[in-house]
Amino acid sequence: MTLHYERDPGAIYAASFATIRAEAPIDRLAPDLQPLAIRLIHACGMVDLIEDFEASGDVVACAHSAIEAGKPILCDTKMVASGIIASRLCGNEIVCTLDDERVPGLAIREGTTRTAAAVELWRHRVEGAVVVIGNAPTALFHLLACLDDGWPKPAAILAFPVGFVGAAESKAELAANPRGVPFATVHGRRGGSAMAAAAVNAVSAGLVEETAR
Amino acid sequence: MTLHYERDPGAIYAASFATIRAEAPIDRLAPDLQPLAIRLIHACGMVDLIEDFEASGDVVACAHSAIEAGKPILCDTKMVASGIIASRLCGNEIVCTLDDERVPGLAIREGTTRTAAAVELWRHRVEGAVVVIGNAPTALFHLLACLDDGWPKPAAILAFPVGFVGAAESKAELAANPRGVPFATVHGRRGGSAMAAAAVNAVSAGLVEETAR
Repeated sequence: MTLHYERDPGAIYAASFATIRAEAPIDRLAPDLQPLAIRLIHACGMVDLIEDFEASGDVVACAHSAIEAGKPILCDTKMVASGIIASRLCGNEIVCTLDDERVPGLAIREGTTRTAAAVELWRHRVEGAVVVIGNAPTALFHLLACLDDGWPKPAAILAFPVGFVGAAESKAELAANPRGVPFATVHGRRGGSAMAAAAVNAVSAGLVEETAR
Repeated sequence: MTLHYERDPGAIYAASFATIRAEAPIDRLAPDLQPLAIRLIHACGMVDLIEDFEASGDVVACAHSAIEAGKPILCDTKMVASGIIASRLCGNEIVCTLDDERVPGLAIREGTTRTAAAVELWRHRVEGAVVVIGNAPTALFHLLACLDDGWPKPAAILAFPVGFVGAAESKAELAANPRGVPFATVHGRRGGSAMAAAAVNAVSAGLVEETAR
């Protein structure tokens, strides 16, 4: 028996992006945000994600400029970091401090999660950086608290914490008061490392597969 | 302003798992499959995922035994590999062949995707292994074709390809004819590396956080 299926990478991308444009009202978004929304939907297979999508009008430009300027990309988890397509960056360092040896002690001392404690270690690298959160609501909450405490501002916050405790709340807090930082997010419980990495890939290179054939 | 949110990792896990049990009909599943379904839902924040969940009754036992026997875990992407909690394994090798130098040439020669070509390199390691697919429908299709060609069988297939081209079809093909291999999957377009890694973490250790406090 032979299995029949589409094997051509270019055809797969083209059909995927065409399906997304056909099923989701992408063209209601500002042109700048469309590749970002398409990549988010592409990463999760859900066209209704667009209903929960919210972004600052300048988030793509600001994040893209930061990448072109060689600023670091700060990720809450290794899964996010490993989903970023490094060849489309400008040699930017992809930073995940979760495995730093100081994190477990810091988490116990502060009475918080390891992902939130890992954010504490971004202090001296956050200025002008691209922040990407694909897992932990506590990481986003902690970052917002640090900004309230006077930390320098990142260039953009790509916020996709996921789950049942704090995910919706942390993203609602960000959108209600982004502390002067451009952001993109998906409201509610949905999110995750694939969306987060896709957001970085979108702001770095758009939908390069559409023209790569 | 102080932000108020739950910071205790144990409390976050407990509340998450309790919400999932309250909102999804987890107890309709065989006891063996419940931790797997809970971790899948936990990874994506969607309780209705259970409607698309399908698994062989013996998939958890078979995958768990393979892990205890030290068999390799074969992943289609690095994102999947990086989401697996290695400390809960038994020293198993986590394999992703996508960056193997032979892959680009193989993909061009076979007229397929790089992820499908990477599966071709599993040939001598697949027997008794745990296969995990969190991204590419073509990787799952190619594995099924290889099994049809007489490859030795893996211990289990944890199948979560995602997206608009081939994801639903490849998972339907697996469920319709699993080639004698125990499997777990989520039907339709949904899937992804977070679910795939969560599935490995479930079969290796269950819901260890529930008892870790």
